[in-house]
Amino acid sequence: MRHPLLAVALLALSVHAGEPAPVPSPGEIAAAAPASDWIAIAPSDLLVMDLAPDAKGHPRRVVIQLMPPPFSQGWIGNIRKLAAAHWWDGTSVNRVQDNYVAQWGDATEKKALPEGLVTVPESEYTVGFEVSYPREAGFAEEVFFPLVDPRYKEDAYGVSGFFNFGWPVGLNNEFVWPVHCYGAVGVGRNMSPDTGSGAELYTVIGHAPRHLDRNIAVVGRVISGIEHLSSLPRGTEALGFYKTEAERTPIVSIRIASELPAAEQPKFEYLSTTSDSFARYADARANRRDPFFITPAGGADICNIPVPIRPVAAK
Amino acid sequence: MRHPLLAVALLALSVHAGEPAPVPSPGEIAAAAPASDWIAIAPSDLLVMDLAPDAKGHPRRVVIQLMPPPFSQGWIGNIRKLAAAHWWDGTSVNRVQDNYVAQWGDATEKKALPEGLVTVPESEYTVGFEVSYPREAGFAEEVFFPLVDPRYKEDAYGVSGFFNFGWPVGLNNEFVWPVHCYGAVGVGRNMSPDTGSGAELYTVIGHAPRHLDRNIAVVGRVISGIEHLSSLPRGTEALGFYKTEAERTPIVSIRIASELPAAEQPKFEYLSTTSDSFARYADARANRRDPFFITPAGGADICNIPVPIRPVAAK
Repeated sequence: MRHPLLAVALLALSVHAGEPAPVPSPGEIAAAAPASDWIAIAPSDLLVMDLAPDAKGHPRRVVIQLMPPPFSQGWIGNIRKLAAAHWWDGTSVNRVQDNYVAQWGDATEKKALPEGLVTVPESEYTVGFEVSYPREAGFAEEVFFPLVDPRYKEDAYGVSGFFNFGWPVGLNNEFVWPVHCYGAVGVGRNMSPDTGSGAELYTVIGHAPRHLDRNIAVVGRVISGIEHLSSLPRGTEALGFYKTEAERTPIVSIRIASELPAAEQPKFEYLSTTSDSFARYADARANRRDPFFITPAGGADICNIPVPIRPVAAK
Repeated sequence: MRHPLLAVALLALSVHAGEPAPVPSPGEIAAAAPASDWIAIAPSDLLVMDLAPDAKGHPRRVVIQLMPPPFSQGWIGNIRKLAAAHWWDGTSVNRVQDNYVAQWGDATEKKALPEGLVTVPESEYTVGFEVSYPREAGFAEEVFFPLVDPRYKEDAYGVSGFFNFGWPVGLNNEFVWPVHCYGAVGVGRNMSPDTGSGAELYTVIGHAPRHLDRNIAVVGRVISGIEHLSSLPRGTEALGFYKTEAERTPIVSIRIASELPAAEQPKFEYLSTTSDSFARYADARANRRDPFFITPAGGADICNIPVPIRPVAAK
């Protein structure tokens, strides 16, 4: 399992021997993409969650990218208001269920919400395909990335594609919707018709629970620091809730990054999903031919082709 | 996200009101299955890994079920010999990579292996379909469970089905193979043609890395205690290896359960994948209609239909 290290050694060897270079890995393809293929993420679309330092005093920062329009904007508007009101400061991570989710918010369920939050209807779990993306605008050709393996395009959860703003989505003939891949951030809710305000959030820390698609709002994805949530002790009560207050991880603050001092704003960029680099990256994810692999899968599920995202190096 | 609790409340309410009972959840279907649908797992097929107690002194036991024939038996034979030789005692968990694997074995890579281990060829990553399961024996009809949703049967990784011993497998017209779902246990290896001895093992702690199918041996699955591996701190070196020895989690012992004193042998059972109960469970996983859900997915990937496994209650 230490194959990348060995792969580097083999690469050096084969170059010396004058043999063809090995097929690059997906990560190597992304790393080699030209700067023009990377798109900066606006600080106004980043949510920065600082947990209390760990037992050794190390800081724990989680960075979440919020989804672009037209997805889930009602909830995301609420989330922006909650962050502006510093509502989450002093709340906590209250639930960690293995192979499912880590969830945070007000454990008392009594903290008053700020003024001005909207109630979002269930119809906004999806976006109308024809309404939002008229075919004459070239939606099918340009917005969705044509993957090489046609089997990739359809899975048990609907026909899937890649949205051109860099987000995985599911779709059928009527609707488009965000999907619950690892690291997806969603809005906790009570029974239908409740859709949640956005004050109670969770992230996926296990195999993609795609049965939640179209049943709960997805509002973003963790792009840095998910290990501070995924490696927390699992709760021992039903659904992974912690039994005691002492087990909860305190949240120091949650802010929209653009509200932080400029020097403290995290900066990230993602690989354009309409770039040639992404095309080759996705094909390589579905057909691993880099040196460790002997049998390419011939396909991949949408959650096994994570969009490459990286911090922007300081200049 | 506290839906099951609310669902129970609603159930009580609707019974009182004389309304039809809500559709049961997959877990409720499994729990209601008759005892005759549950199959005991032989202690000789269980690997018991005891990690050093955690910082609070709590024991950490991980139980792994080994695959039945005809899958991966060369490696499993080696694993039995390694356990019998107490080879893993004093080794450690050396690598934890977020959304991928936790891996254990000899961090020094210098510990001598016991006598008698075999070298398994790559051809044993798969099992020949026609050779092992002649069609005249009713393989297609009986061994694989016919799921209700036909879309489920094929995914981007091959045509998938459920093996009648209770294991998820992938298959095409030629081969059958075990798949890398959450909790699957595989054999670390170096570059091909190395296939690993079985001394270096890992388990999946994130989204199913199905690109590893047919490229690495799968020998079992964690059926209890995976949280002791999945919640470990992530390693900060390349591939999630720990930087220092102090970060590693010591392994006290790994034993085949049948070698433990009878009173200490863990006992588990799984829901027969050819039972009617499993049919309804799998259909419910693919089409959630229990009260929290408003839109059934209409399908599921094979790793989102985990085979129900539970401890056998002491009598």
